[in-house]
Amino acid sequence: MALRRGGVDAQSRFMIIDEGLELLSEEQARDLLASGEVGRIGITIGALPAIFPVNYRIIDGAIVFRTSPGSKLSAAAEGAVVAFEVDDYQLADRTGWSVLAVGRAEVVHDLATTFKVLDSHLQPLADGRRTSIVRIVPTFLSGRRIVHEAPVASA
Amino acid sequence: MALRRGGVDAQSRFMIIDEGLELLSEEQARDLLASGEVGRIGITIGALPAIFPVNYRIIDGAIVFRTSPGSKLSAAAEGAVVAFEVDDYQLADRTGWSVLAVGRAEVVHDLATTFKVLDSHLQPLADGRRTSIVRIVPTFLSGRRIVHEAPVASA
Repeated sequence: MALRRGGVDAQSRFMIIDEGLELLSEEQARDLLASGEVGRIGITIGALPAIFPVNYRIIDGAIVFRTSPGSKLSAAAEGAVVAFEVDDYQLADRTGWSVLAVGRAEVVHDLATTFKVLDSHLQPLADGRRTSIVRIVPTFLSGRRIVHEAPVASA
Repeated sequence: MALRRGGVDAQSRFMIIDEGLELLSEEQARDLLASGEVGRIGITIGALPAIFPVNYRIIDGAIVFRTSPGSKLSAAAEGAVVAFEVDDYQLADRTGWSVLAVGRAEVVHDLATTFKVLDSHLQPLADGRRTSIVRIVPTFLSGRRIVHEAPVASA
């Protein structure tokens, strides 16, 4: 793990770099999380781990997405502590970042949040009746970004 | 859930469509898994769920990726049943697919596999000493693809 001033984006601050990954601040992680559209939720279904992509919004600091009522996803998420991940990679440049949020998931029943979700124009990509809303309030948030100490050889 | 012949790609076969998602065959899921470069592994670290992106290859039917020796990732993956997810979305078109693999992860110690991994030119995107190889042999493989029954309104 290396600690150094400056870096690829020439910011005048200390960066913690661990094996080529800059550990982002919680604020940076929150900003990147808010910028994403498709994330992945990790849940347990019948004792087996599963990861599913969902399109989401951040509303009142919480991750929200829509799913089908009675789906395996909403059943598994209800009350569980889940992981939620967002990332963006540019393979050609060997750059990218990822953010991990961990928190308790719950199915939203209050009308105030439901209206905010509808107002946010959160539309599932797939067709189908996705009239359940799942909310994850992150209690743990972390992020990593690839930094290259030396220019990448273009051989 | 609707069962119908044909579909968006005009293939003459039955498609199982569940809430706007076509359930892919295991063969289709395997092909898509082999076409990906960055996937996400779901693990448990200190009783908390986590999801991390890794760049990977398929070698002898197994998902392999490189990580740092003694990292939280390789420690958590060793011997555990993990989820591994790959997806690709085009938000503008509201199209995309995802594949979920579940299987036991293990740190690779045999030289034959190690040489195959090096021969595959699997290079981690980030710098750092990623000299451990983790292998996941999928025992469960599933895939979903967004299908739209009706043309998407371009309003």
